[in-house]
Amino acid sequence: MATTPSQKLSNIRSWMQSEQLDALLIPSSDDHQSEYVADHWQVREWSSGFTGSAGTVVITQDFAGLWTDSRYFLQAETELADSGLELMKQGIPHAPEHVDWLIEHLQAGQTIGFDAAQLSAAQVFALQAAIEKANKPIELLAHSNPWKTIWPERPALPNDPIFVHPARFTGQSAEDKLEQLRIFCQQKGLSTYLLSSLDDIAWLLNLRGTDVDCNPLFYSFFLFSNSGSHLFTKADKVSEELAKELAALDIEVQDYDDIWQLGNRFLAAETIVGYDPGTTPYRLYQSLWSLQWESVGNPMRDWKAIKNVTEINHIRTAMRKDGVALTRLFRWLEKQVQTDPPTEAEVAIRLDELRRAQGAYHGESFSAIVGYQANGAIIHYRPPQKGSARLAPEGLLLLDSGGQYDEGTTDITRTVALGPVTEEQKKHFTLVLKGHIALDRAKFPVGTTGVQLDGFARYALWQERLNYGHGTGHGVGFFLNVHEPPQGFATTITTSRGSTPLKPGMLTSNEPGYYQTGGYGIRTENLIICKEAGDVGFGPFLEFESLTLFPIDRRLIDISMLTKAEIDWINTYHQQVNNELASHLDEEERQWMEAQCAAIG
Amino acid sequence: MATTPSQKLSNIRSWMQSEQLDALLIPSSDDHQSEYVADHWQVREWSSGFTGSAGTVVITQDFAGLWTDSRYFLQAETELADSGLELMKQGIPHAPEHVDWLIEHLQAGQTIGFDAAQLSAAQVFALQAAIEKANKPIELLAHSNPWKTIWPERPALPNDPIFVHPARFTGQSAEDKLEQLRIFCQQKGLSTYLLSSLDDIAWLLNLRGTDVDCNPLFYSFFLFSNSGSHLFTKADKVSEELAKELAALDIEVQDYDDIWQLGNRFLAAETIVGYDPGTTPYRLYQSLWSLQWESVGNPMRDWKAIKNVTEINHIRTAMRKDGVALTRLFRWLEKQVQTDPPTEAEVAIRLDELRRAQGAYHGESFSAIVGYQANGAIIHYRPPQKGSARLAPEGLLLLDSGGQYDEGTTDITRTVALGPVTEEQKKHFTLVLKGHIALDRAKFPVGTTGVQLDGFARYALWQERLNYGHGTGHGVGFFLNVHEPPQGFATTITTSRGSTPLKPGMLTSNEPGYYQTGGYGIRTENLIICKEAGDVGFGPFLEFESLTLFPIDRRLIDISMLTKAEIDWINTYHQQVNNELASHLDEEERQWMEAQCAAIG
Repeated sequence: MATTPSQKLSNIRSWMQSEQLDALLIPSSDDHQSEYVADHWQVREWSSGFTGSAGTVVITQDFAGLWTDSRYFLQAETELADSGLELMKQGIPHAPEHVDWLIEHLQAGQTIGFDAAQLSAAQVFALQAAIEKANKPIELLAHSNPWKTIWPERPALPNDPIFVHPARFTGQSAEDKLEQLRIFCQQKGLSTYLLSSLDDIAWLLNLRGTDVDCNPLFYSFFLFSNSGSHLFTKADKVSEELAKELAALDIEVQDYDDIWQLGNRFLAAETIVGYDPGTTPYRLYQSLWSLQWESVGNPMRDWKAIKNVTEINHIRTAMRKDGVALTRLFRWLEKQVQTDPPTEAEVAIRLDELRRAQGAYHGESFSAIVGYQANGAIIHYRPPQKGSARLAPEGLLLLDSGGQYDEGTTDITRTVALGPVTEEQKKHFTLVLKGHIALDRAKFPVGTTGVQLDGFARYALWQERLNYGHGTGHGVGFFLNVHEPPQGFATTITTSRGSTPLKPGMLTSNEPGYYQTGGYGIRTENLIICKEAGDVGFGPFLEFESLTLFPIDRRLIDISMLTKAEIDWINTYHQQVNNELASHLDEEERQWMEAQCAAIG
Repeated sequence: MATTPSQKLSNIRSWMQSEQLDALLIPSSDDHQSEYVADHWQVREWSSGFTGSAGTVVITQDFAGLWTDSRYFLQAETELADSGLELMKQGIPHAPEHVDWLIEHLQAGQTIGFDAAQLSAAQVFALQAAIEKANKPIELLAHSNPWKTIWPERPALPNDPIFVHPARFTGQSAEDKLEQLRIFCQQKGLSTYLLSSLDDIAWLLNLRGTDVDCNPLFYSFFLFSNSGSHLFTKADKVSEELAKELAALDIEVQDYDDIWQLGNRFLAAETIVGYDPGTTPYRLYQSLWSLQWESVGNPMRDWKAIKNVTEINHIRTAMRKDGVALTRLFRWLEKQVQTDPPTEAEVAIRLDELRRAQGAYHGESFSAIVGYQANGAIIHYRPPQKGSARLAPEGLLLLDSGGQYDEGTTDITRTVALGPVTEEQKKHFTLVLKGHIALDRAKFPVGTTGVQLDGFARYALWQERLNYGHGTGHGVGFFLNVHEPPQGFATTITTSRGSTPLKPGMLTSNEPGYYQTGGYGIRTENLIICKEAGDVGFGPFLEFESLTLFPIDRRLIDISMLTKAEIDWINTYHQQVNNELASHLDEEERQWMEAQCAAIG
């Protein structure tokens, strides 16, 4: 059994020789293009030792390298030491810079191998186009599960049960959603549609699972067909009762691996299948004639982005639960930090417990970021389970966390003072807050995109020539992924976050920040829902409403930097927080909340 | 001679039959893709009777239509009445919606004709691609000057002399600029580059002309070559002295029409020519093998966008001249409107005279927009020479004008009260002003694009669900075109205005507005130069400086709506205006200016 990275590398290279591969491409994804993947798919991590969430490995006989972006340079340098892999620093996150490297370094006639299921059809098309453009005949060799041979001790597929997320929460039955998909297919002249993205399958069928940490998903493919649909997943995951419910929706359960028999077993001859090249594995695409596919995008992506009234009402409940849990956490922390200060990791555990006590809780929506002092300035910091920093009654604590409830997915960041704070800290906190308020208060015409709104959250910081190195916000699912495309607030239009027009019902985070390396980190994040704002003769306008319910630390606000409108916003928001939470708190908590929400200015 | 549009249409259709054309495409452009064109190229206007600046005519045997955008719907409806042409309303300005129409309505095997010089290579490529995508074999027939036959009374090419814009103004000699182009070509492995865009030729050679109204251009092509360059223009336009100066730069003057002999007479066999498909006429592209062209863009577009220190210093002089001229205009108007009110057209004439009196003046940089009351709400309004509205001592006057000086191109809009104003007018004026100030004050990181900044100018209006239907700003030339790409502030990234990162030295307008149809129009426009703003550890930042020097009407400002920072901006700006202009004004004017610039708040 290969135990060290360099032994693995040597095994991989032997296998490559036997397969006549000059290069092997190892991405971070599973067969569904998920952001987070189960252990079964941690191929890139297994082969390189690098544990970051984003990276691509390329191996040739005389080179091995990991491409990742600046968020992970420090971590990768440590983790790749003695692995035989070189750190290849990417300029732009997610940009396929390794493709340029491959085209430059391989010779005409050489071959690139990859797991045909781990790359989407669109990724392989792009690879083909890049090779064609370079006018250098390099052959792509799509392998079916090369890991079976290379990685014998590969973890099994997760086998946890799938459960129903009832329509009383989702506001729309699976039957209705399937009918919506049927009409979509009809409009496109199709009888069949293949869905590979896990969150869309979960949304469509009102089902959830626990196959991936923090994301309530289950591994599956879904083949919609007018003549009877198929859900491809491990049979053990489906209870008898669920199988019956699915049968009532004209859905038959098939083994997960049977998806690779798509053409042979599940499609009538010459059926044309609607699909989204961005999430469909190339291995599936390859299994049919290209004429049998029709690229029609993924309408579920847009449908699930618009939260319905039932969902929005439930989200308000989830927010109230979060607010109560955070109240209990911060009251506990206030006392504890004076007497027996906890570590960052202990704060995360405590918060998870407090959320669980609120009921209908399925766990964190992402690993909580608990960043004390300088750790708060590391944007993707997660406290290690052992040896995380111990808090003290001074400085700033950044706490970014979220929960998965039946009533929705939450994501909130608050930065709080654990003791005396400096004027500079207050200044930075207030600049971030001004940005947060500017975006929250914005009204804008229908059609406005994320890239047009992002700057509102940065203007105040930019005036001081300060900035933050992440987008201002991402879409959020409903008891689904905490990062849910397409919408968001970003500085570029090359992402869907930047280029998608906001629409009523879209739920997005608003999270500007400030990070002083080696000093402290500040971020203030609410989830905001987009709503109609009327039309006074200049076309229909939209606006946001903050759904997150927890006070912003008043001790960190420099009131002299605020306009009257900003002070009004803070006081109105705090009044709303207090009103919504009061009846769910005990008397002492109520008094504490009252004080936190007292008017300023 | 065809006198009515319907007679012209009938003649055109006869000609089309003789040429076996099923459709004829008539764009608005000249052979250089200019925004404004000389009479010689007013083919679309001649054939349709429509005088707007943007539009495309399509003629078949049983249809004739003009595609234009919402700015021109009213005007086109009037001008097309009884012409036999249908108004085809475009959703998006400049979008080639007529192409979709052609593909839909023509049958396989039918033909589309066009003047191969009036369409750029890129436009024909796009047409070809659209036809290919539709999978409908429609033939494109590129004609060489069809107008010779169809339009016998076509006006001659302008024949005005070309004159030198000396390097003491431009800050860089033509020799230097040519060397810069030589190095660019060398880097691209080219010995030859073809330049078709008139403003780039003027910039490169430090030459100007008067062939096009308001744009100081001369009709020409320029073939740069290491072995001797060629300027193709009407020989009469080049004085003996200028010919000598050009010869010293290794440039030979050729007849304008000789450009069509490019391959035969001016290129050695198999020379590869660098070119920009966006501005090179397809007729030229067609004249060589496609392998002889290399698409390398147009570097002059970016070079001339960055104003050098000499240019910026001169622009300050031009701004001072504009400020003095506007002072005299508004002082005159203040008296005149009480006793003998002028018409809108008379105001435009008077302002032109006052600018001329400032010296080194070459005329307006565009036809002044003088919009009194409801006319101010028509964004592209130009007062007719006869019968324009007469002002009165009440309501709002919007005045958008600019001059061409040796020291640069100006463009300024002020909205002033001619009498008592309403609270609503003050509110709208102040909202526009808040937007103007927000953009002017913005600091932003290097790399920030126009679409990210545009919203700063709209935020305050958007809060009231108000908006304006134009971009917030455009690039401005240096004694060149008042609309100069690539940079600007726009709501979409599909234009270069939206997608171009701002750079130090770029000159751009900042002109938010508000237009109440049937009521009044408000716009406040300064030209702002982009400058470095330092780096405090978060990367290099940029900012703007207003170069325009004229007070903003204090009577229209509702101070209660302003923040302290906004009030400070106004007072600082007014102090600067007063300081810069005072020594150029007489005593009475100085007192007037002092009062206009008195501190508010």
